[in-house]
Amino acid sequence: MTRSICDRASLRACGEAQTETMRYTNMNDYTIAAGRLQIGNLQKGAHNLITDVAGVTVGHADVASGDLQTGVTVVMPTPDNVFVNKCVAAAEVINGFGKTSGTIQIEELGQLESPIALTNTLNVGKVSDALVAYMLASCEREAVKIQSFNPVVCECNDSYLNAIEKRVVDEKMVIEAIRSAAAVFEQGAVGGGRGMSCHQLKGGIGSASRQFELDGIRYTVGVLVQANYGRLEDLMVAGVPIGSKLRHAIDAQHDIKSDNAFDPSIDKGSIIIIVATDLPVSHRQLKRMLRRTTVGIARVGGYIGHGSGEIAIGFSTANRIPHVQQSATRDIKLLSENKMDMPFRAVAEATEEAVLHALIYADTVVGAEGHCREGLMDALKKYGVEGF
Amino acid sequence: MTRSICDRASLRACGEAQTETMRYTNMNDYTIAAGRLQIGNLQKGAHNLITDVAGVTVGHADVASGDLQTGVTVVMPTPDNVFVNKCVAAAEVINGFGKTSGTIQIEELGQLESPIALTNTLNVGKVSDALVAYMLASCEREAVKIQSFNPVVCECNDSYLNAIEKRVVDEKMVIEAIRSAAAVFEQGAVGGGRGMSCHQLKGGIGSASRQFELDGIRYTVGVLVQANYGRLEDLMVAGVPIGSKLRHAIDAQHDIKSDNAFDPSIDKGSIIIIVATDLPVSHRQLKRMLRRTTVGIARVGGYIGHGSGEIAIGFSTANRIPHVQQSATRDIKLLSENKMDMPFRAVAEATEEAVLHALIYADTVVGAEGHCREGLMDALKKYGVEGF
Amino acid sequence: MTRSICDRASLRACGEAQTETMRYTNMNDYTIAAGRLQIGNLQKGAHNLITDVAGVTVGHADVASGDLQTGVTVVMPTPDNVFVNKCVAAAEVINGFGKTSGTIQIEELGQLESPIALTNTLNVGKVSDALVAYMLASCEREAVKIQSFNPVVCECNDSYLNAIEKRVVDEKMVIEAIRSAAAVFEQGAVGGGRGMSCHQLKGGIGSASRQFELDGIRYTVGVLVQANYGRLEDLMVAGVPIGSKLRHAIDAQHDIKSDNAFDPSIDKGSIIIIVATDLPVSHRQLKRMLRRTTVGIARVGGYIGHGSGEIAIGFSTANRIPHVQQSATRDIKLLSENKMDMPFRAVAEATEEAVLHALIYADTVVGAEGHCREGLMDALKKYGVEGF
Amino acid sequence: MTRSICDRASLRACGEAQTETMRYTNMNDYTIAAGRLQIGNLQKGAHNLITDVAGVTVGHADVASGDLQTGVTVVMPTPDNVFVNKCVAAAEVINGFGKTSGTIQIEELGQLESPIALTNTLNVGKVSDALVAYMLASCEREAVKIQSFNPVVCECNDSYLNAIEKRVVDEKMVIEAIRSAAAVFEQGAVGGGRGMSCHQLKGGIGSASRQFELDGIRYTVGVLVQANYGRLEDLMVAGVPIGSKLRHAIDAQHDIKSDNAFDPSIDKGSIIIIVATDLPVSHRQLKRMLRRTTVGIARVGGYIGHGSGEIAIGFSTANRIPHVQQSATRDIKLLSENKMDMPFRAVAEATEEAVLHALIYADTVVGAEGHCREGLMDALKKYGVEGF
Repeated sequence: MTRSICDRASLRACGEAQTETMRYTNMNDYTIAAGRLQIGNLQKGAHNLITDVAGVTVGHADVASGDLQTGVTVVMPTPDNVFVNKCVAAAEVINGFGKTSGTIQIEELGQLESPIALTNTLNVGKVSDALVAYMLASCEREAVKIQSFNPVVCECNDSYLNAIEKRVVDEKMVIEAIRSAAAVFEQGAVGGGRGMSCHQLKGGIGSASRQFELDGIRYTVGVLVQANYGRLEDLMVAGVPIGSKLRHAIDAQHDIKSDNAFDPSIDKGSIIIIVATDLPVSHRQLKRMLRRTTVGIARVGGYIGHGSGEIAIGFSTANRIPHVQQSATRDIKLLSENKMDMPFRAVAEATEEAVLHALIYADTVVGAEGHCREGLMDALKKYGVEGF
Repeated sequence: MTRSICDRASLRACGEAQTETMRYTNMNDYTIAAGRLQIGNLQKGAHNLITDVAGVTVGHADVASGDLQTGVTVVMPTPDNVFVNKCVAAAEVINGFGKTSGTIQIEELGQLESPIALTNTLNVGKVSDALVAYMLASCEREAVKIQSFNPVVCECNDSYLNAIEKRVVDEKMVIEAIRSAAAVFEQGAVGGGRGMSCHQLKGGIGSASRQFELDGIRYTVGVLVQANYGRLEDLMVAGVPIGSKLRHAIDAQHDIKSDNAFDPSIDKGSIIIIVATDLPVSHRQLKRMLRRTTVGIARVGGYIGHGSGEIAIGFSTANRIPHVQQSATRDIKLLSENKMDMPFRAVAEATEEAVLHALIYADTVVGAEGHCREGLMDALKKYGVEGF
Repeated sequence: MTRSICDRASLRACGEAQTETMRYTNMNDYTIAAGRLQIGNLQKGAHNLITDVAGVTVGHADVASGDLQTGVTVVMPTPDNVFVNKCVAAAEVINGFGKTSGTIQIEELGQLESPIALTNTLNVGKVSDALVAYMLASCEREAVKIQSFNPVVCECNDSYLNAIEKRVVDEKMVIEAIRSAAAVFEQGAVGGGRGMSCHQLKGGIGSASRQFELDGIRYTVGVLVQANYGRLEDLMVAGVPIGSKLRHAIDAQHDIKSDNAFDPSIDKGSIIIIVATDLPVSHRQLKRMLRRTTVGIARVGGYIGHGSGEIAIGFSTANRIPHVQQSATRDIKLLSENKMDMPFRAVAEATEEAVLHALIYADTVVGAEGHCREGLMDALKKYGVEGF
Repeated sequence: MTRSICDRASLRACGEAQTETMRYTNMNDYTIAAGRLQIGNLQKGAHNLITDVAGVTVGHADVASGDLQTGVTVVMPTPDNVFVNKCVAAAEVINGFGKTSGTIQIEELGQLESPIALTNTLNVGKVSDALVAYMLASCEREAVKIQSFNPVVCECNDSYLNAIEKRVVDEKMVIEAIRSAAAVFEQGAVGGGRGMSCHQLKGGIGSASRQFELDGIRYTVGVLVQANYGRLEDLMVAGVPIGSKLRHAIDAQHDIKSDNAFDPSIDKGSIIIIVATDLPVSHRQLKRMLRRTTVGIARVGGYIGHGSGEIAIGFSTANRIPHVQQSATRDIKLLSENKMDMPFRAVAEATEEAVLHALIYADTVVGAEGHCREGLMDALKKYGVEGF
């Protein structure tokens, strides 16, 4: 028996939630809850966001009306034009039931030359074309010749809450997200995360960061996720089995006898993980870092389900690569291989925390076909489950 | 000194070529030339086209007017809806300086659920969205629920002949290409190949097939390429160094002293290789087959240049996979591993021949900024080079 | 400050432990502790061992004397000669700081034709040659022609407890391990696991299994690990932070002020994960399953450290492949792709439990240079930490 | 009908060839023939050998007696201990029906810390262990602590000429090969190439190099192959179909009516390709270079057969990596990505020429079961085929 956390008895209450008015109201509670999290050993960055990596900004645009609950989030890797000065980059497919575009060239050249957009599954084409339009215009303004461009668009499937087939995320929204990009940005049910579900609760956009010193220099690793995967029972918050507590409370309240059959296939959906850093890492080293995102996801309760598009994309703001390289060689700094353990930890910790932030900051959303996903904090309160 | 084969002295003559009127006029000569080709040992299929694999069809739509010389070619893998009954598939990135989308899911699931579109680099987004629209409509007609879809769009960069930034390939053209798909189709400067260059001559769409028997059953391997790579001097036609002969003839006619400097970076562009078969191969076996496409390309004179997006996508029409799989297992036939040598040869031979067909069938085209690419047959005649 | 769990104050006590006499004495306690574990949702197999997959057997041979604490464990995939009838197989490199041999051919052909041996890092060559000798002799006995053979040897680095440079694991020990292979086998500090460390405790060989039904047929997934990675503080046993509790107890008893500096690079070592199943999966599907082993490792507290060779090898006993394939095709059953979630869960759960078994069943071992690794159960008792 | 080039009628004549006395006698003729080769556009290095990359040396040891026709070739990447100062490295599996060991760590860390040994298939274990012994001794002499080591051993199957099951290549021979390593070395039927076949002729070890300038600095790319693949009919020497000419001459002389059936499965065997360079390339860039080795192999007539272990390993002598890295970062030079075309060409040309050198320098060898492989130059003379 598969159940949305708020279906049946709770549906009416849930339906009454006025999505628009609920948004952003409980930010203080959320911030307090997020602040209580203790994930791992490393220090958090100033904002505990991917934007703690200097120069990185994030913007959102979304539609939150009736059966349209979707949007786009854009990670701007650099303050200047990333096509003109590219970033070292890598991509890692953890589970490839997904439509992310742009990874082939990232992997061949080890370079990122585009903002990274996160949106819904069926909107990849339109968002991709919007990034092309944006970059052609940007380069024209800067009098940079551009005839080839590799737009990077990631996606999760928000069709539970969103009328995905309408593909409403258009060029205007992409430009809006880019224009609104800033160092401080909202988390939860916003932007590309507007319609996402996570552990059968409301998912969305989450972010976190970690910092550490090597040879007296402070380095930052930042993570942003678009979280849209998982079963409720599997959810762990900082080691506490919140998901299973919630499931029992819901069943008790709704007087449901738990079915004996265990159905893991509920773990649909996807998670996109963007990793930014100022470490002077190579494509290969960055790819190694990306592989550690699974450690964080597993600890929140992910099993990397069959239906999940789990794709990680990473970039470094060190050792920028000019579009036109005149000289045959460049002088760069490169991280020593035996210093990789700290970056690995940072990725694992920040990924775990970013997913939890996506859950904590997400309000309850009612969308397509009256489907509802409750925010984690709403659900804890509603079912009287003690938190973390 | 890099030279378009028809720049400088020849530009005027070339400019006089009326693109529209030249198209399709010499088809008989071309067919005769193509028929003379002797590549490898295996037997050709009935049409010597990818469509010799039963059920596969190909359609084109293009724009051939002034600085717009571009289009889209669609390979329809099956006569019925491939989303409802998917094909076993694989993708192989030979050189990933490309923007092909859809390969992540093909590689994870070993499945193709979309027509394969070939177009120009900056049109991937729009064509991808058009495939989504097409498939949503198709499934609606068939009352099939669809909330996720993996469109497959391949590309090469036609910016030498085409004002690529205009991205004129739209949904209407994609639908037109799909509707026109047939077992017999044009090759050369058509569809997605309209603006492509190959070995500094006019490139485009080419196709070929091979057949052989195993245990008394006849199997077919078909290849279709969108060829857009290479230096003139490197071109080999069935073992004959036609490219170097042409270069000498052109230089002699234009009284050019050959520059001593050797510049391999002219080998820009890309090649997309679609491989179809009715062999009952697995994803892994198909991927092994795709890796043999490089044998064919190398023999025509390709070096897999840095700037080249060389990507192969393969599918089998055997062992179709229902979108909804009720039972836990399926009974299938699987090719014995030690029978792979024949399929490998077939892929290598058909790829080599398909590239040569793209060259042989291509007319001279004048496009953006007055740029011209001469068709191979035109060039041989014009410069008095004996062919093959 | 990096500390072996039993160095300094405890070293003397630890040194007094008579390795030989300690072995196997507490098996009952261990079995009880292992039996208490509750990992995940799926049912355990009859022995909760990899050998619950019918036909699979496991054997050990080791040296446990002074500075020689090492050995070899052999997983026999089938009761009959696996060269003559090969298994569908796959390999997945999670972190490749390792010397495992045999994976290239497994990945190309999707086949396993060798027993799988697990030993120490510097003994791979000798054990590999021993497998060749064994298989040549086996095939000679069976009058099977053999001129090529792909031995599979996995390794972790046991140099903390073992004088690894002596490479004492020889052909005789490999044959002994093969001969002793059985459905019921020891876990802990035995065979290839004799000298291994895990979470700074005594590691070694662990195993577990899961079962489930699909369409009324019962399938089994079994896992065997050679566990040799991790920091003490990171150890989680079924959700309980046992490692951090132990660390505090040790520090308290030894009156050590914890250093503020966090050094993740202690997480050296490696883990080898062997996955067996009777599911009729393809190479691709098996590889997908192997990628879920990280979920289990992460939940025990692994971070996939830089210095870790984390390599997973999987095989299926379904759809055996004859060495000599006469007919062009074979009829096989293949698992439906949308049934993969259950196998994924099974792999994650069994991997987590197998690592915990390696810890629970391991006795304290004193080896090279007087180094000591305490068994988990010994350590819990010694430092008065309540278990799980 | 599959035929060894010298079986049946020619076997007696072939059997009379005294292997020992034939070796090295025709070196001058061979050198002249090799000197006539015109492959590609780039300049050859001083010796036209892999050792044109400064610091690289190559040594052989072999057994050439009766049914034992085998050996080992060692490529020493640096004059000093490569474990102490490692090389940037990469590995690329072109077709993985092979047993090469050491590639997992090369790919994870992008580092080579071992000499590279080339030997026969069943001797990989023993040669691997010999490299361990060698490196432990080397490090002991230099007082370098070593507890982990990644030996790199490549192989082809020489069982047609060699009693491979005897595994006669032992530690003594490996040390002999290492000690004899020099900048000038023999090619053909020597070392690991002693028992190899190529295009049904005698194969073995071949080498070549290419040089070019970037920003006024001269760089070198060197290739060494152990060639053991291919059908006679497919052999092309610098564009000339020598193999098919030879086949016709042999058939005419032996009065054989050619069978109509085409059997591509004769293309067994393998090819190992070692690429050395002094270009300051990253692991990723080196891997891109390795992928271009197939261009060279395809032009000699290779089809990358099913049974072939085709594996390329590359290393750079620039940017050496200290075993103990104290500082967090290193300053290095890195080749600009858009300068990769010249290195790509160099790899393709040198690989093609190296294979041809293996053929040209190889004497006729008679080995196990009286099997014979004629040297290319011997065969051309014997059958009166005009060369190249």
